Amino acid sequence: MANDFQYTGQCKEILETADARVGDKVRLVLKRGDSQEVVEGLLMPRFATKDDEDYVVVKLKTGYNVGVRIDSGTKIEITGKGTEPHFSRPELPPRQQDLPKVCIMSTGGTIASRVDYRTGAVKPALDADDLHSVVPELAQIANVDASIISNIFSENIGPPFWSKIAESIEKEVRKGTDGIVVAHGTDTLAYTSAALSFALNKPPIPIVLVGAQRSSDRPSSDAATNLLASSAIAGQAPFAGVVIAMHDWISDETIAVHRGTKVRKCHASRRDAFRSVNTSPLAYYDLIHRSLKMNTDDYDRRRKPNDWSIKPKFDPNVLLIKFHPGLSAGIIDWATATGYKGLVLEGSGLGHVSESLFSSLERAIKNGLVVGMCSQCIWGRVQLNVYSTGRDLLRIGVIPLYDMLSETALVKMMWAFGNEREPENVKQIMHTNLAQEFSDRRVIEEKHDG
Amino acid sequence: MANDFQYTGQCKEILETADARVGDKVRLVLKRGDSQEVVEGLLMPRFATKDDEDYVVVKLKTGYNVGVRIDSGTKIEITGKGTEPHFSRPELPPRQQDLPKVCIMSTGGTIASRVDYRTGAVKPALDADDLHSVVPELAQIANVDASIISNIFSENIGPPFWSKIAESIEKEVRKGTDGIVVAHGTDTLAYTSAALSFALNKPPIPIVLVGAQRSSDRPSSDAATNLLASSAIAGQAPFAGVVIAMHDWISDETIAVHRGTKVRKCHASRRDAFRSVNTSPLAYYDLIHRSLKMNTDDYDRRRKPNDWSIKPKFDPNVLLIKFHPGLSAGIIDWATATGYKGLVLEGSGLGHVSESLFSSLERAIKNGLVVGMCSQCIWGRVQLNVYSTGRDLLRIGVIPLYDMLSETALVKMMWAFGNEREPENVKQIMHTNLAQEFSDRRVIEEKHDG
Repeated sequence: MANDFQYTGQCKEILETADARVGDKVRLVLKRGDSQEVVEGLLMPRFATKDDEDYVVVKLKTGYNVGVRIDSGTKIEITGKGTEPHFSRPELPPRQQDLPKVCIMSTGGTIASRVDYRTGAVKPALDADDLHSVVPELAQIANVDASIISNIFSENIGPPFWSKIAESIEKEVRKGTDGIVVAHGTDTLAYTSAALSFALNKPPIPIVLVGAQRSSDRPSSDAATNLLASSAIAGQAPFAGVVIAMHDWISDETIAVHRGTKVRKCHASRRDAFRSVNTSPLAYYDLIHRSLKMNTDDYDRRRKPNDWSIKPKFDPNVLLIKFHPGLSAGIIDWATATGYKGLVLEGSGLGHVSESLFSSLERAIKNGLVVGMCSQCIWGRVQLNVYSTGRDLLRIGVIPLYDMLSETALVKMMWAFGNEREPENVKQIMHTNLAQEFSDRRVIEEKHDG
Repeated sequence: MANDFQYTGQCKEILETADARVGDKVRLVLKRGDSQEVVEGLLMPRFATKDDEDYVVVKLKTGYNVGVRIDSGTKIEITGKGTEPHFSRPELPPRQQDLPKVCIMSTGGTIASRVDYRTGAVKPALDADDLHSVVPELAQIANVDASIISNIFSENIGPPFWSKIAESIEKEVRKGTDGIVVAHGTDTLAYTSAALSFALNKPPIPIVLVGAQRSSDRPSSDAATNLLASSAIAGQAPFAGVVIAMHDWISDETIAVHRGTKVRKCHASRRDAFRSVNTSPLAYYDLIHRSLKMNTDDYDRRRKPNDWSIKPKFDPNVLLIKFHPGLSAGIIDWATATGYKGLVLEGSGLGHVSESLFSSLERAIKNGLVVGMCSQCIWGRVQLNVYSTGRDLLRIGVIPLYDMLSETALVKMMWAFGNEREPENVKQIMHTNLAQEFSDRRVIEEKHDG
């Protein structure tokens, strides 16, 4: 196994000449044209890739890894000796009859990311068995099967992938698994959870989407806790449906379980980045006592998958437009001319846009586009009957989407057009509460942790 | 004055026949084709407008007013007698030498909104003297001058208006006023506060933007408290610069003072909708003890307006694009072909977009567009050196905008192109901290109330 982490080619020669080994503290002095660049940190192992033979990987003090191109002119000083890190791969434990069956599907993302040796940045590289060996406690919680669906950053995930993952989930459910964990990048995790909430059409078991905000080679990684909690939730939870399970707070005590249509990534880097919006989390998982507590009685129960079928199609011809001062109506005319079928507007406040957009919106709707209105405020709800701007938008034919998140509305409209052609039918679908995407009004008035 | 509130024409006849008076509880039964519609509520006064003679205004139980078109076929039942509401206009109090001079500039919005009798919705209709008579306590706080700049909903406010208001503010500052209050609709209040933060180029006195989330005819209105607090802050505060003053919480105790570049409307309807993002509020105003407490020492002090000049120009050819799964690269090609000068992307997570957009972004940048990256997470900061997607974006020439709000970044880029032609100069401006639009990193790591 050790060979996996060794350098080859020119790098190997240069490192050997300097007697530098993986794990050592190093100081690299690099020639960059007429000037010098100094990089200090821990020399990291690397996974062999053909393109990368000129790069070494150094973990900086900040915890981030950088890839550094070295050549024969590079000076390497060893400022401290270390021991080479290694991955152990324990044998998988025997299955226990009384534990639930959980399938962990891997799609990529930080939850199992490795270093990209070309750019020195973190890149997804997922092997589901590795996950199990990294989190041995999984064996106490569930009999885990692993499957790799893809190995991509979530920013590259879109409608075709949503269909693929929905179909993969359906197969696993039919096999009789008790719960499914989907390991996924956090960037678009909430879009995918909304997409699966509609495509899976009231699934009979828990589908738990999970990611990590810090990669597993950092001390602050949340990959192991999140994987553990999501597997426990998938195996034991009484509810059926699509949720996201992520840290409720920065400490390793509680994992919040958010409904798939009511959740948003609200922080770029914190472990507790995900928040339920206009509602409370569905449940909390206590990492210390390893117990799940439901936060409400209002949820679908687990059931047999009889009479269940999925609706995995999406039509990507829907555009999300965030209104802003100075926004030209040209963008709406362009979308209409280009063949978009629907627009989701993120209006200001209760759901407003400048009156300079009215005639283009009217034309779009006359051309058969469905135009829905959400609020860029994030919290609260669209109300188009309070101000004259809203009344004018209603008259034009813009449909209010109340407290639905704009991201959820976008995904829902793509799904609606994947299943229906007629704008009137799509409008009706947009106004039907299919997966708890609309909240009870009272809940909205009371909640506001933004 | 009473005439202002009376009905005329056909409405007057119908109401007189039914002996219905303003203030009465009424039940209107309306013929609508073959069916009937029933509206119940309080008969409200109306302000005469030529187009509205067929409409009466009824305040529903919900607190909202609706305009109802009535005709000779309308049945009107009086279900309770009431008294006609009236506005008193006390004489303005004499000026007091020891009080600061404050100028309240009115632009429109809910803070002084009235009912639109055509649609029954709330419409801005602002008279600054009215404000004074509605909030008599103002006379204890400052010698108030009022000026009306415009009377428009803030969703219709854009770059030309920002220039106009900056010029109006400059004139008032040169006259020697101690502080300025700008009454403005809340929908785009944060965009305007960012715009003024750059256009006013380190103003020498406090410029306090204020709005109201509930109109003054509702019991829960925040118009009076907000106007009172913002006038006190403008007159007394030790700081110079552009801020937004709005409720810190739903109760009438504390007004939070947010820096103009670091604030966002985060709720569609709550009185405490505005939040400082990636930083704490600059100060708090205690409504009960009428005192201002600074929350930090890190602020510009009041000074004489010597050597001060404004930079009021904006170029609206900048587009904000919120990245989402399935987003077609066509929108970037369209913006490039259309003559946009800059794009502000709301990327996912640390500032990512799908790799399917890379070649269009590269083309845009080669064509001279400036492309900045913010995060749609809202909280946290863009970091393009962590993942390979970010490194690729840096290589293409996308510039990271760290923890700047996307709304602020959009406005700043419009302002930068209003003052500079060269993309390289605009990039440099975008990376210079001109009005506290970037936070200290430590602050960001600790703060996260989203």
